[in-house]
Amino acid sequence: MNSTLVKDLYRKTGDYINNNVQVAGWVRTVRSSKSFGFIELNDGSFFKNLQIVFDEKLDNFEELTKLTISSSIIVQGLFVKTEGAKQPFELHATKVEVFNLADTSYPIQKKNTSFEFLRTQAHLRPRTNTFSAVFRIRSVAAFAIHEYFQNNGYVYVNTPIITCADCEGSAEMFKLTTLDLTKPLPLKDGQTDFTQDIFGKQAFITGSGQLHGETFAQAFGKIYTFGPTLRSENSNTKTHTNEFWMIEPEISFCDLDELMDIEEDFLKYVVKAVLERCPEEIAFCDKFISNGLTEKLNKLLNSTFVRLDHKDAIDLLKKADRKWEFEPEYGGDLAKEHEKYITEYFNGPVFVKNWPKDIKSYYMKLNSDGKTVAAVDLEVPGAGEIMGGSQREENYDKLVSRMKEMNIATDPLYWYLDLRKYGSDIHSGFGLGFERLLMYITGMENIRDVIPYPRTPKNCDF
Amino acid sequence: MNSTLVKDLYRKTGDYINNNVQVAGWVRTVRSSKSFGFIELNDGSFFKNLQIVFDEKLDNFEELTKLTISSSIIVQGLFVKTEGAKQPFELHATKVEVFNLADTSYPIQKKNTSFEFLRTQAHLRPRTNTFSAVFRIRSVAAFAIHEYFQNNGYVYVNTPIITCADCEGSAEMFKLTTLDLTKPLPLKDGQTDFTQDIFGKQAFITGSGQLHGETFAQAFGKIYTFGPTLRSENSNTKTHTNEFWMIEPEISFCDLDELMDIEEDFLKYVVKAVLERCPEEIAFCDKFISNGLTEKLNKLLNSTFVRLDHKDAIDLLKKADRKWEFEPEYGGDLAKEHEKYITEYFNGPVFVKNWPKDIKSYYMKLNSDGKTVAAVDLEVPGAGEIMGGSQREENYDKLVSRMKEMNIATDPLYWYLDLRKYGSDIHSGFGLGFERLLMYITGMENIRDVIPYPRTPKNCDF
Repeated sequence: MNSTLVKDLYRKTGDYINNNVQVAGWVRTVRSSKSFGFIELNDGSFFKNLQIVFDEKLDNFEELTKLTISSSIIVQGLFVKTEGAKQPFELHATKVEVFNLADTSYPIQKKNTSFEFLRTQAHLRPRTNTFSAVFRIRSVAAFAIHEYFQNNGYVYVNTPIITCADCEGSAEMFKLTTLDLTKPLPLKDGQTDFTQDIFGKQAFITGSGQLHGETFAQAFGKIYTFGPTLRSENSNTKTHTNEFWMIEPEISFCDLDELMDIEEDFLKYVVKAVLERCPEEIAFCDKFISNGLTEKLNKLLNSTFVRLDHKDAIDLLKKADRKWEFEPEYGGDLAKEHEKYITEYFNGPVFVKNWPKDIKSYYMKLNSDGKTVAAVDLEVPGAGEIMGGSQREENYDKLVSRMKEMNIATDPLYWYLDLRKYGSDIHSGFGLGFERLLMYITGMENIRDVIPYPRTPKNCDF
Repeated sequence: MNSTLVKDLYRKTGDYINNNVQVAGWVRTVRSSKSFGFIELNDGSFFKNLQIVFDEKLDNFEELTKLTISSSIIVQGLFVKTEGAKQPFELHATKVEVFNLADTSYPIQKKNTSFEFLRTQAHLRPRTNTFSAVFRIRSVAAFAIHEYFQNNGYVYVNTPIITCADCEGSAEMFKLTTLDLTKPLPLKDGQTDFTQDIFGKQAFITGSGQLHGETFAQAFGKIYTFGPTLRSENSNTKTHTNEFWMIEPEISFCDLDELMDIEEDFLKYVVKAVLERCPEEIAFCDKFISNGLTEKLNKLLNSTFVRLDHKDAIDLLKKADRKWEFEPEYGGDLAKEHEKYITEYFNGPVFVKNWPKDIKSYYMKLNSDGKTVAAVDLEVPGAGEIMGGSQREENYDKLVSRMKEMNIATDPLYWYLDLRKYGSDIHSGFGLGFERLLMYITGMENIRDVIPYPRTPKNCDF
């Protein structure tokens, strides 16, 4: 007999009512009296559990009363409607096979479920309600992202993560090697002999696929990347990990205004998809993780994002009746407190655009004022900056001149410069840290709790 | 005026005929006479080009006759049907803006387009027909893979690629570090002092997400991974790269037979999606890359995959009237020549299952004969093995005993063993190298030509 998914019992209830069905899954809770008992079973297909009723007529009734949390069972029974109960239906068991009785040492018990403790149980925490919700939302959001781009004619590009060009500044990058690090490094003329390494030279992990992405955007018009990114920052905050996932779209024949249109459309699409496809998970997060979450997300869908020059943002901050920890400056970045004020002031998402060139990257389009670049950060209420993008400098000479100003070696990036020699175009792109988006969507406050196995300084377990 | 995509001109021709439209893209070819000329324009949205007709009435007619390959242009004109011409329609230009005239040094010219040369131009090769076809198919296939799993209730899991457990055998794994490799390594008591490294101990890159995937399969029932995989093999063949993408589904309450059902259903879904969504690209590959490709793929869709025990496969090979380079053996692996014979013998895809335990991994389910494991490789005509899977050993004691036999340290894998203590279940999974699948679908013969920026020993350019 094939097992039926609990999801189908919830979503297509009518098809199963008064039928015999089999389900297979794990025990979330069990309680029993002398003659009958209830099992909350979760099979992973759905956020909610299925209630199973068993009684003393079953041969192994005694065994069932001793079921432990997380035991795996296979149940056959009659699927029936309930009246007046919390559950709209339940399964009256005619047979319950205990496939694996979970050891009583199972570490996740009711008394200890702090997120911090659960991080030490990363292999088991997806069995809890919170992480079941978070990681299913993660999966649904990831697919919605693919859907959005594919439906809009973007080509998915898998840019490499290994590189031998240390143009990003190798201090910031992980080094990758096949040399034996438990022994002294091989030397040649007093220097490390990287010719013995697999690529014949020193290798690194890139912190972004943008530059490679641009090469494909000039062939396919619109492309996106979506993959893991490794950065070696020694930063222990709630929003940093050394391994995270990033989305980097790149669009040809697209200026900064059009880029903002795309960012807004994209973000709304993903949020809407999660709201529609994960109603149970979002309701749970709203109730137990972040009160008002649903309202916040719905508000985002119904708002038109404000577009504000960086200069005007600073004006606004200076005029504000506030004492700032960090004084707002025309030539400076926005602090968390500034981002918060701005989104609260406009009561919704805000694009801050045209940033001072000195605090932004070399590849961003220099505006005609010679002082600002066509960069844009999207600030959202409650999370601050979640996307960063820019129009790219498409002029060969201007790009080279900016690289020289900022001490970026041009030789290793000859291929990136080639794009400006062979069919350059006005083009733009943005980057989105997937985990930051998930924190915003789920209301979780620590990035370690929205990625399956977080890697942070001094922490690389499992 | 907004630009129209060439894709829409092809797919929704009727909406645009006899209308003024604007297109923006790159020049693939240009030819002209004294009073008129033709441009083949590609905007990346579609495999095929749009023919643009321009004549001396345009102010910049002279400039247009000197257009170079890959120049970017923006064209306005009347979109009209053609009679008796190769193209069903063309654009009669009323205005052509040359945004960027490509330098004549553009390296991809008609005379030198070998795949080997184009690998040295990896940043420009997607602008050629072949790579335009290959990389669009790659994108469409990737999305079809996500679609298949999402539509069938799988949860997408992003397993980590950084690990500190060298249980796979560190010799095979890349080492990842933040230590400065251009200087002597820091020492403590005569040994490399990894406490100074970012994670406080030595870190590696995993070659598989399977074990972590299994932890999520016990929570969500069905999961899949899809991400880059780094392996440090010093192998220079047409089917090896040091960085490639892999798909690893893991399914709870699923035995080897059900796994084969899933593999077959999955592969057919992806091939069918590519055939339906990339007809122009597949037709091109069939004509210029691999004659008979369409027929091969259609045949796969219409076949029922044969299921054959490894032992029976060896019997078949021994009985064959062939002289083998490698003698088939009951305890041994299949050589390429054996795979080829078997798929030709059955004239279609073949699952070879129940392999001798000594040549397979420790986590595979030991069959009741004590000699074989419930592993399965899928062999397809023309490509050999493209998927490898197995039922996993779900019994704690048997798993530990297999690990000890094969000298796998159990301590660092305590979390993997925990899965057998807390709700173990009969479960199975498989792995698919995405590039191998793409080679099969496109007919390309070198893995370096189906991944945007290949990394192979001594080769890590761009």
